[in-house]
Amino acid sequence: MKELEERILKDGVVINGEILKVDSFINHQIDVKLLNSICAYLTKDFKDIDKILTIETSGIAFAVCASEHLGDIPVVFAKKSKSKIVDTTNVYTSQVKSFTRDIISTITVDKRYVKKGERVLIIDDFMAEGNASLGLIDICDQAGALIQGVGVAVEKKFQGGRERIEKLGYKVVAGASIIGFENGKAVFAD
Amino acid sequence: MKELEERILKDGVVINGEILKVDSFINHQIDVKLLNSICAYLTKDFKDIDKILTIETSGIAFAVCASEHLGDIPVVFAKKSKSKIVDTTNVYTSQVKSFTRDIISTITVDKRYVKKGERVLIIDDFMAEGNASLGLIDICDQAGALIQGVGVAVEKKFQGGRERIEKLGYKVVAGASIIGFENGKAVFAD
Repeated sequence: MKELEERILKDGVVINGEILKVDSFINHQIDVKLLNSICAYLTKDFKDIDKILTIETSGIAFAVCASEHLGDIPVVFAKKSKSKIVDTTNVYTSQVKSFTRDIISTITVDKRYVKKGERVLIIDDFMAEGNASLGLIDICDQAGALIQGVGVAVEKKFQGGRERIEKLGYKVVAGASIIGFENGKAVFAD
Repeated sequence: MKELEERILKDGVVINGEILKVDSFINHQIDVKLLNSICAYLTKDFKDIDKILTIETSGIAFAVCASEHLGDIPVVFAKKSKSKIVDTTNVYTSQVKSFTRDIISTITVDKRYVKKGERVLIIDDFMAEGNASLGLIDICDQAGALIQGVGVAVEKKFQGGRERIEKLGYKVVAGASIIGFENGKAVFAD
């Protein structure tokens, strides 16, 4: 969507030619007007969704706003834990590697909050290699939930996240789809 | 507000007579309908607010929703760091003790995102001793921002947070105000 692409070009900061910082409007300060436009866009092709699943921290704003565009459905955010040992009696877990920080986190979701047969839309702020979304997909699979698709505000398409998720058969929607960086500026897919 | 009190009595779980778990509707799974009612209530007495300030993680949902009730103003969430050593060139910092976890975190806000003269409303999901809000107040003071008040979904009033903040001269609004626990159930202020 044009509005987000223009904002990334105006206020995004590219570091080392591969990290895009958008903390002035997405993940430290949040432009709520833009958030609403993005979430309207991400949700427009989905219907009859029972639940939004995201991951802390920055995904929460997008998940709540996406929920409002889908009839105020429940939002669940997976929690990140640095511990590799988590009591799995009551929670689903998955391992997620962070692209920006190069650490592996265990993500957890209480088993009561993702259920068999629920139609789930996965929402996040960013997708690079797609690891966070794949972790959430893994949790939905464990629960027997029905994944309807993945919506992210910004994807760095050249890092393969979309490809990995589409290969599993799931629809991916992105507000802005970056195919590379040139002269310190993002280049978007047509 | 009655709706939230009733929900706490129905779905809240009291542990060890002092910890209230509300993760089925506030801080793991979020009931977005209830979130909207709470945020309408928290914001109704505030106007001409420039910015909402909150703290990751669970505060973000409330901050975004409160912003929507105040005209889609920017939201800023403070980040928590376990490190006591933070480069303070570009960020304001404050120390915050967690009541539930008994650890001290350093919270940080980029200096570009809270500014002198801005009218700030502080929003959070929970208040016990008020440490998180006091940390955010400290950051606003460092920035020269004008604190308009503090809104929290649930306060455990008997733990003194409200008293400490009101003593500083700031208005506190809570969706539900718990004055104690009896027989494993919350008791609310009149």
